[in-house]
Amino acid sequence: MAFLGGGNPASIPEAEEIFAQTYEAIGRDKSHLRSILGDYSGPIGNEDLRSLAAEALALELNFPLTKEHIAFFNGSQNAFYFLLNAFSGTMPDGTFRRIGLPIVPEYIGYADQTNEAGVFAAFLPNVEQDGPNRFRYTLNAKQEYPDDLGVLVISRPTNPSGNVLSLREIKDLHSLCVKRKIPFLIDLAYGNPFPNLIGKEEPIHFSPGMVLSLSFSKIGLPGLRFGIVVADPPVIELLSSFAATGNLSAGNIGPAFARIFWKERTLEYLSNHILRPYYDTKLQMALEILEGVFQTEKIDYLIHKPLGGFFVWLYFPSISITNQELYELCKEESVTIVSGHYFFPGLVEHFSHREKCIRLTYCRSEEEIAYGSKILAQLVAKHS
Amino acid sequence: MAFLGGGNPASIPEAEEIFAQTYEAIGRDKSHLRSILGDYSGPIGNEDLRSLAAEALALELNFPLTKEHIAFFNGSQNAFYFLLNAFSGTMPDGTFRRIGLPIVPEYIGYADQTNEAGVFAAFLPNVEQDGPNRFRYTLNAKQEYPDDLGVLVISRPTNPSGNVLSLREIKDLHSLCVKRKIPFLIDLAYGNPFPNLIGKEEPIHFSPGMVLSLSFSKIGLPGLRFGIVVADPPVIELLSSFAATGNLSAGNIGPAFARIFWKERTLEYLSNHILRPYYDTKLQMALEILEGVFQTEKIDYLIHKPLGGFFVWLYFPSISITNQELYELCKEESVTIVSGHYFFPGLVEHFSHREKCIRLTYCRSEEEIAYGSKILAQLVAKHS
Repeated sequence: MAFLGGGNPASIPEAEEIFAQTYEAIGRDKSHLRSILGDYSGPIGNEDLRSLAAEALALELNFPLTKEHIAFFNGSQNAFYFLLNAFSGTMPDGTFRRIGLPIVPEYIGYADQTNEAGVFAAFLPNVEQDGPNRFRYTLNAKQEYPDDLGVLVISRPTNPSGNVLSLREIKDLHSLCVKRKIPFLIDLAYGNPFPNLIGKEEPIHFSPGMVLSLSFSKIGLPGLRFGIVVADPPVIELLSSFAATGNLSAGNIGPAFARIFWKERTLEYLSNHILRPYYDTKLQMALEILEGVFQTEKIDYLIHKPLGGFFVWLYFPSISITNQELYELCKEESVTIVSGHYFFPGLVEHFSHREKCIRLTYCRSEEEIAYGSKILAQLVAKHS
Repeated sequence: MAFLGGGNPASIPEAEEIFAQTYEAIGRDKSHLRSILGDYSGPIGNEDLRSLAAEALALELNFPLTKEHIAFFNGSQNAFYFLLNAFSGTMPDGTFRRIGLPIVPEYIGYADQTNEAGVFAAFLPNVEQDGPNRFRYTLNAKQEYPDDLGVLVISRPTNPSGNVLSLREIKDLHSLCVKRKIPFLIDLAYGNPFPNLIGKEEPIHFSPGMVLSLSFSKIGLPGLRFGIVVADPPVIELLSSFAATGNLSAGNIGPAFARIFWKERTLEYLSNHILRPYYDTKLQMALEILEGVFQTEKIDYLIHKPLGGFFVWLYFPSISITNQELYELCKEESVTIVSGHYFFPGLVEHFSHREKCIRLTYCRSEEEIAYGSKILAQLVAKHS
């Protein structure tokens, strides 16, 4: 068995020990615990903790944030659900607005979130060779964008490709959004300031017009469902209306963890000294195993330059079956992968990557990765 | 100051002690805690806990429930958001379906949840005198319902009125829904099996065609955001699709509390020996104070027979200002109440209760209730 499909963070004992201690610390302050369990928070969180978040994130995101820039949600997916529906589809003025994805592949979880159909407009990247068996997606600087976009969305690092758009690319997209007066959504679930799995690229700073989404899931706390949106105050107000009806109130447990983390500057330590070293090591191990078996089996392969996140994105140029068929064959051998065809919502052009790419997580044991990659390589070899 | 507007459950030290102990018990089982914090659950919860919920609720709801009947959400409001949008508005076949509220007043929180406008169809109750200064809303048995309803919705007890529809009334509404092949949503946030604040009326049993919604908020745990839907398996499957995109995953902390509660049969004890006696005593105290000052100030008043929930619903027949104006005047004296006009979404007929009713919570201290009701009575006297 090899479960290389999922998106669960790895089990890292040092991080888990910090989380268990934090859980315990929350329980020790009885009167505070009483309120955490027994009082409703505001729809997007309580003001004191939103202020604390603003203070902590102002440093990291290099902008004088206040609580009016901050909203808490039951996970960042929940925030995206409201955001994507607010900025796409039929607008109050009757126009129809689409969600622009400046580079596909892009996160699968956006695809079905909208209440109206036909809202995605996907744009092809440039595909650049980046050394032997390596490629990289970059922004097509010559791309012309249609007039009907209501929002641009990227994830950084990108799930699934592990791409980290450069600050130059971010700046160009941001300028476009400012010019068009549409928001620029940047999903930082794997990014900065935490878990900060963005390799060597510079972190993003907040600028007006951006909507940044942060999550506690990828630091290792997906069970808490805690996501944070950083945006201009009018966007936060809009989100607050959605949250009041769709959620009534944000949960208190995630913010209680955050309170301790921010007061004790835990996240910086966690990211720099536990999570990054762990995932870096794990990634190098996975790459060595994968390339070893790919070369043994003599298959054609290209790996997206792994710049950040939990995933390896593979392209098999000579494969004769689709990625969906490859998924089925792997599954018969108890190896789960994710077929890449899901990650191109709204794409109309032909793009070989849509049928020839797959996503693997490297957050699993060496044995699973070794077993899984061997089966995978043999199947690709057989069908090339 | 008297905050008689809010919907927060009361602070009950005996209940809070149980909650603190449960929190601690979860923390003691380290390997389980690791998974609670560090693993994604399914979109509507994990199968083992949904099975445990089915087992526990099967007894209470008198139906052979399985995990396929159970879905977990980040609060029952979150579940209602998906339910109301699934069953109202423009359907896949192009027809437009409305949400029927067989009795208004009805919970304010439904009103803005839908993505499309004009979806509520409200029906007037019979208003029956029920002793001196008491009235009660009952179902209008002669009501004819239009053909375009996609769902019927009630809360039991009803927020705001504290009404508890009789099982006869429930049966009639259920039959109508079965005949029309539309779901019958029953919000049991204050009802059975927990916190079970339904006075002397019999609890509801589950029958196919019903969609029951339960919440941990009113037992005293609103900070956990944990709601449960009990419904026919196809409805649960539909909800699972909504949850997968809108939430990605349900939180694990609420279900962890529930697991301990169900294994140790805590909720039954909590409801019968702590919550009901507490709220009963509190209600009697509030009624005595209210009626005392109303009679001292010689105002006309009627109280909806308080059958369950946290609220007293008051009707002032002779008042010369609107409930919204009364709210403003109270606020100037630092007394917050909720104006009743919010609780009639979709009502087109004239109904004096819409302008002359208010909602008060009785989950506050004796001093606050005494101060608030005196100010209220004096203002009503002045404007009658």
